[in-house]
Amino acid sequence: MTDKTPVTVLGLGPMGSALAGTFVDAGHPTTVWNRTASKAEPLVEKGARHARSAAEAVAASELVVVNVMNYAAVRAIVEPIAADLRGRTLVNLTADLTDRARDMAEWAAGHGINYIDGAIMTPTESIGGPGAVFIYSGDEELYQRWRPSLASLGGTHSHLGSDHGRAAAYDAALLDFFWTSMNGLMHAFALARAEGVSATELTPFAQGIGQLTVDLAPDLASRADGGNFPGEGSLIESNADSMGHLIEASEARGIDASVLRAAKAIADKAVAEGHGKEDYARVVEMYERGAF
Amino acid sequence: MTDKTPVTVLGLGPMGSALAGTFVDAGHPTTVWNRTASKAEPLVEKGARHARSAAEAVAASELVVVNVMNYAAVRAIVEPIAADLRGRTLVNLTADLTDRARDMAEWAAGHGINYIDGAIMTPTESIGGPGAVFIYSGDEELYQRWRPSLASLGGTHSHLGSDHGRAAAYDAALLDFFWTSMNGLMHAFALARAEGVSATELTPFAQGIGQLTVDLAPDLASRADGGNFPGEGSLIESNADSMGHLIEASEARGIDASVLRAAKAIADKAVAEGHGKEDYARVVEMYERGAF
Repeated sequence: MTDKTPVTVLGLGPMGSALAGTFVDAGHPTTVWNRTASKAEPLVEKGARHARSAAEAVAASELVVVNVMNYAAVRAIVEPIAADLRGRTLVNLTADLTDRARDMAEWAAGHGINYIDGAIMTPTESIGGPGAVFIYSGDEELYQRWRPSLASLGGTHSHLGSDHGRAAAYDAALLDFFWTSMNGLMHAFALARAEGVSATELTPFAQGIGQLTVDLAPDLASRADGGNFPGEGSLIESNADSMGHLIEASEARGIDASVLRAAKAIADKAVAEGHGKEDYARVVEMYERGAF
Repeated sequence: MTDKTPVTVLGLGPMGSALAGTFVDAGHPTTVWNRTASKAEPLVEKGARHARSAAEAVAASELVVVNVMNYAAVRAIVEPIAADLRGRTLVNLTADLTDRARDMAEWAAGHGINYIDGAIMTPTESIGGPGAVFIYSGDEELYQRWRPSLASLGGTHSHLGSDHGRAAAYDAALLDFFWTSMNGLMHAFALARAEGVSATELTPFAQGIGQLTVDLAPDLASRADGGNFPGEGSLIESNADSMGHLIEASEARGIDASVLRAAKAIADKAVAEGHGKEDYARVVEMYERGAF
């Protein structure tokens, strides 16, 4: 027997399975359900209980965690069992748009379901370890009630506000940064390899550059928020020149430079509008002003 | 008196001034020259000697460091004083294309000038401190001879090979990663702000994402170099879906998504060619195959 809170996990893709397995390892009586039942087998071997239906699964626990592809998939699972979820807490760790998070919260409230919207900012392999990052939004008291159980998933857990859209807003912005950076890294590997430098040789230096971006972020953020772009250090006009050289270097080696071209177009627009002697953080406003 | 090697610094923009000031602070007899002479004043106050001409400047030191806008600007300075540079060592810390670095090395060899090509991978503010990153290429023995003096600039100094184009190749690939990541961060700030999350609120989480990219880099590099894309964890097809959601989220808030659109087009191309169930590192090859 254990005194840990029973937990139900709906959805057993790679992430859902990692969540469920981590709850089992932490000693929570864990009930799992997935549309394709075979996904439950490795978890049952670990000690999870496999429910034959989503309704049976949620009946087993006051705390229900769902992680599937998107909110349409969440709704396909939870709408038919709304009555079974009444009075329980649904923690939706599926990532989607902010409006869908708010709509989902409204739906849950309409059915007497306690609802926490959340997102997981780190890969499957991180779950259960110190590097996992979970973010949540919704009623804070509700979040605090379930926090000890959620903490069994490892890593850091942050409540970002009562507006249910907030976790999704952070999630989208963070994925945006991640995927753009990933493309920068893949493109850098391509450019290095074209010059006979392997991706592996470049990596220690690329890690230094990644760290530099991390270190510069707070200053850039405060300039973006404050609308204050003093242009000490580097200037948008020379940054745009740099990007131009990189496009030239890429295309001279037959490498696609469309991502850099799009980035340079934004910087060029800032220069054309007279911001050439300012900080790069001015570019935030250029993005905000939309497509041109 | 000092036993430190005399150094001449040509070019006193923000970076050149930081280099010269750091040499002065480290006790090197430092001679400076800049086309616009007034830039030398703060350095002269610190103890640098101001030469009236580039020829006079290089006559003062066996070690000559140049940092200006680009190689055209380097050549405009050094070509007229080739005879004065003969037998001395020119360390060119200006960033430019690999072919221009090799051409410059050839020009230097033709005039009996020892030549080291280099680049600085960190901002002006880093110079003199532990975070500064300098990379070099060219004859290794020559580099080792001057390494103790270059080390006065602080940070880490790496020799990347005898091919003079190598430092420029690393430089280009690293700047490519930097500027693409920076655009990712600026865009993430724009997207967060559109949802009422300030750039400053987002920053601690964005720093976590930056760190994640740093941590993932070695695996991605070895997959890109090895041509091995097992597609455990996340798959290009779902990564492309994620980018699609981010484009949708951005444009719904009136935010320009052209950079993400360009990145998604590359991922989509990988999926269309049957690589949807592979790792994102496959995208390196898509970039390498050029514009489509």
